[in-house]
Amino acid sequence: MTELKNDRFLRALLRQPVDRTPVWMMRQAGRYLPEYRATRKQAGSFLDLCKNDELACEVTLQPLRRYPMDAAILFSDILTVPDALGLGLYFEEGEGPKFRKTVRSEADIAGLNSIVAEDDLGYVMAAVRTIRRELNGEVPLIGFSGSPWTLATYMVEGGSSRDFARVKAMAYDQPELMNQLLSLLADAVADYLGAQIRAGAQAVQIFDTWGGSLSAAAYREFSLKYMQRVISRLPAEADGRRVPVIVFTKGGGQWLNAIADCGAQGVGIDWTTDIGAARQQVGDRVALQGNMDPSMLFASPARIREEVATILAGYGHGSGHVFNLGHGITPGVNPDHVTAFVEAVQELSPQYHLAD
Amino acid sequence: MTELKNDRFLRALLRQPVDRTPVWMMRQAGRYLPEYRATRKQAGSFLDLCKNDELACEVTLQPLRRYPMDAAILFSDILTVPDALGLGLYFEEGEGPKFRKTVRSEADIAGLNSIVAEDDLGYVMAAVRTIRRELNGEVPLIGFSGSPWTLATYMVEGGSSRDFARVKAMAYDQPELMNQLLSLLADAVADYLGAQIRAGAQAVQIFDTWGGSLSAAAYREFSLKYMQRVISRLPAEADGRRVPVIVFTKGGGQWLNAIADCGAQGVGIDWTTDIGAARQQVGDRVALQGNMDPSMLFASPARIREEVATILAGYGHGSGHVFNLGHGITPGVNPDHVTAFVEAVQELSPQYHLAD
Repeated sequence: MTELKNDRFLRALLRQPVDRTPVWMMRQAGRYLPEYRATRKQAGSFLDLCKNDELACEVTLQPLRRYPMDAAILFSDILTVPDALGLGLYFEEGEGPKFRKTVRSEADIAGLNSIVAEDDLGYVMAAVRTIRRELNGEVPLIGFSGSPWTLATYMVEGGSSRDFARVKAMAYDQPELMNQLLSLLADAVADYLGAQIRAGAQAVQIFDTWGGSLSAAAYREFSLKYMQRVISRLPAEADGRRVPVIVFTKGGGQWLNAIADCGAQGVGIDWTTDIGAARQQVGDRVALQGNMDPSMLFASPARIREEVATILAGYGHGSGHVFNLGHGITPGVNPDHVTAFVEAVQELSPQYHLAD
Repeated sequence: MTELKNDRFLRALLRQPVDRTPVWMMRQAGRYLPEYRATRKQAGSFLDLCKNDELACEVTLQPLRRYPMDAAILFSDILTVPDALGLGLYFEEGEGPKFRKTVRSEADIAGLNSIVAEDDLGYVMAAVRTIRRELNGEVPLIGFSGSPWTLATYMVEGGSSRDFARVKAMAYDQPELMNQLLSLLADAVADYLGAQIRAGAQAVQIFDTWGGSLSAAAYREFSLKYMQRVISRLPAEADGRRVPVIVFTKGGGQWLNAIADCGAQGVGIDWTTDIGAARQQVGDRVALQGNMDPSMLFASPARIREEVATILAGYGHGSGHVFNLGHGITPGVNPDHVTAFVEAVQELSPQYHLAD
């Protein structure tokens, strides 16, 4: 494989010395970019775009042409696994993702397809390979999946949910059934991320978008435990290099102490968490990724720069910080404000790495 | 005034000995009750119901006829203040609240009505007086308002919001303008809650529904500070009895240490916070209110009872706990499950108050 020219992101996740804090943005390939909207139009539906490896590669690379990001992230959806399991993922304009079938009983679980990610999600692996080829070693490529709990919420509810009444009723009332579904999903996610790593992903992130909807105890039982299981099954290395795992539970700031022990090298934190307090809490156990409020990108470039400075100072000196937003970038953001964001991280962070 | 027969709720908020843990539910008067839906139909719109003191009293009392709750809460909306300020509150079926006008500039702020709650929100005071009369001292009546920040989010956005892009841009980019609006709202909310107390409210709760959307620093600056200002202006007593204040920031679990110093006697916590850890953190400073996941009411009565037991054990021995859900009750809940919830608190909590 081509040698990696910029490994700042991978080194920071392993808390190895870096010259400056690496930066990327969740959903950096997305609707705020006019070139993304053009490619999306050309592709047809959102899923058509995900399933076309050349176009998925194109949108993955678009933000890198504008901004000197330290990592690329595979363009895909968090719900590809349940789609392959047979639920029929679709999107209706202006609404969240939906499934044609739901999973609410043992029979529903038994009716799911047996899948092998390499084959049944071959379009994702094709995209990973194409992107790696086109990246040509410039920056590392991040693969990803939804967490088992997050996938389960959509599978049981049939789509997005306000209060997760059905999936929570299942978890609370039929924990065995819930655990059966989550075990199956943990296996599928481990297989899926493993296949992405074998195809060329140099780090992987588990998006636990809805873990934060649970109580503290239920989070450990139904979300964290299964992410831990996924991580324990991933290949630690690829091409002789460590493949770090990032876990991101939106709304998980109160549970950082437990999350830091799940086996991941990096933990994503949203903007409601004070990054200095978070670092104190996790200590040397993991690197932290985050955590500017995505809405800060609606403020002026000067204000954005000020906020970047505050977050850098909050984390303080030394490696172990990957700069990011605290959640995905919001569609209406002015792309020039992203320039201000990335430049601020580049220009203001070297002072925190002087003695490294 | 009639003597109060059950003061468990008020005593627990002041951490005085009680025989058992008091219980009530946020939105206990609401859509999950068939009798509420009938009265609502009779009233016309939701706002018509709020503005009719006899019917508002009727729905306030309905849950008390079914369940032995330890407090009643005024039936009203969190957005009555901005409505009185001239924004024109309305509701569209199946959607959140909306305003006909928004506030996005100094001119918009200057254009707001000057209000005196006693007069301009007289319908609320009429409802408080009617409810107090009809309650006849059975249990205390809780008054409430939205927090200044929460009111501001709706006023700037013009309704509910997913990401609060406009109001946050205002806070981040034009903090002086934001502070001007929040000062005005803090004055109005203090006047409003003061008027409710003079009309007969025996405790008040400030609902900070959207404080949790902010970063830790922005929360202190734009939400907590103004709740503190409201609280400092409230009458401490009415009819010779202390009037406790409860502050509830949904998603505020990471900031409990700061919230506990805001001057409130009680702090509401949502279900993502471990109540034992919360008690350790706040110590003797405040009472805690909460915090069962509202979705637990979709589980079986046996499972609900188990969860109540877990939360009671989590808080542990002694006064200072008001049992509640961690957020408002969800419309689709079976009213019989609420019976199981309230009975569990009544039956399982006395053991935690034996030595009081």
